[in-house]
Amino acid sequence: MKIAVLGTGIVGRTLAAALTGKGHSVQMGTRDVRATLARTESGGMGQPSFSQWHAEFPQVQVTALADAAAFGELVFCALLGQGALPGLQKAGVGLNGKILVDISNPLDFSQGMPPTLTVVNTDSLGEQIQHHFPAARVVKTLNTVAAPLMVNPQAVAGGDHTLFISGNDADAKAAVTGYLREWFGWQQIIDLGDITTARGSEMVLALWIRLMVALGTPMFNYKIMR
Amino acid sequence: MKIAVLGTGIVGRTLAAALTGKGHSVQMGTRDVRATLARTESGGMGQPSFSQWHAEFPQVQVTALADAAAFGELVFCALLGQGALPGLQKAGVGLNGKILVDISNPLDFSQGMPPTLTVVNTDSLGEQIQHHFPAARVVKTLNTVAAPLMVNPQAVAGGDHTLFISGNDADAKAAVTGYLREWFGWQQIIDLGDITTARGSEMVLALWIRLMVALGTPMFNYKIMR
Repeated sequence: MKIAVLGTGIVGRTLAAALTGKGHSVQMGTRDVRATLARTESGGMGQPSFSQWHAEFPQVQVTALADAAAFGELVFCALLGQGALPGLQKAGVGLNGKILVDISNPLDFSQGMPPTLTVVNTDSLGEQIQHHFPAARVVKTLNTVAAPLMVNPQAVAGGDHTLFISGNDADAKAAVTGYLREWFGWQQIIDLGDITTARGSEMVLALWIRLMVALGTPMFNYKIMR
Repeated sequence: MKIAVLGTGIVGRTLAAALTGKGHSVQMGTRDVRATLARTESGGMGQPSFSQWHAEFPQVQVTALADAAAFGELVFCALLGQGALPGLQKAGVGLNGKILVDISNPLDFSQGMPPTLTVVNTDSLGEQIQHHFPAARVVKTLNTVAAPLMVNPQAVAGGDHTLFISGNDADAKAAVTGYLREWFGWQQIIDLGDITTARGSEMVLALWIRLMVALGTPMFNYKIMR
């Protein structure tokens, strides 16, 4: 499948690498292609620079946000929370009619750690995206786990844990559920309901961040026990 | 042990009944003892009226908030979120030096379902309680599960799921962890850190409420998988 991954951070890279590995044709969308490709500084968490990473995955094409969105039959939004809406604005009409898997979280790190959420209670970033791009079929998922787990749930407890999914379009949710199962091996996916339920899966980040500190690792997840 | 349970709703009743069953001496604190004992209307969820409930558990003494707090060697705050601070104000000096187990959640149901949280991000009800009652040893826990599970984790998946605990006083957290284990059988209790981490365990309610709707039952819990 032709897939667009918007965003070139850890989440975007992890997805692009995994999807390429599954034989998909991936375009990574970025605001400024030349600047992204020229980036040689390492990330704050010790991750490789974008150019180092891209040298390992040359089959991933790096294109402008609008080009990537136009290319993809399926689009992942892996932009930082505060850059999601402006980034998608640049992606533009290429989003229309497509499934847009929103992985972004409305986190504000400007006051240091732990981050706060810029949208809570009566709104969510997932809803804002659906509102601003009514012709896109927004599906919120994957935002509750660390990047390595998104594409490899088996890395924790053999994959025995839960992912949440929210969206207004039942067919889009069913398609994404199938992709997550088939491509990455997700076994437990709970449909929370329409896109307003993204309020729940975004606000849980406040617990996730504190669990990461308490456990000393981002490699954990919730399993819903009944 | 002499235990005060502040609040006469479902959480307070469930705790009082379970603690009495374990041989503890329980006083339930309420704003107006006479009005509480005279209450004959059923709850909105079909639960028995307070007087019906109390007829089953006559060994639970119903007293004023200040009397119950003064009586308890250990105090549970099972007040509704919006009534917690004013209720504890009435409990007053009886809280000083004692472990105050805060189970309340800052939920606002005034705009209907789902409720919103009145405190988020940079504050929590647990912190507000600790701030207003600096001589109490506030331990936030049990607020992330339904009342029947609080005292009987075995009711879901044989007790194989996780509880969170937050507080500034390590000895108080250790004592409460021991009580939860010994009295109710909680096996997995994760110490999130100081009382500011209650922001995480309170904000997760936004997900809990939506999971309750999606699953059609409040009888579930998170298990942290690593």
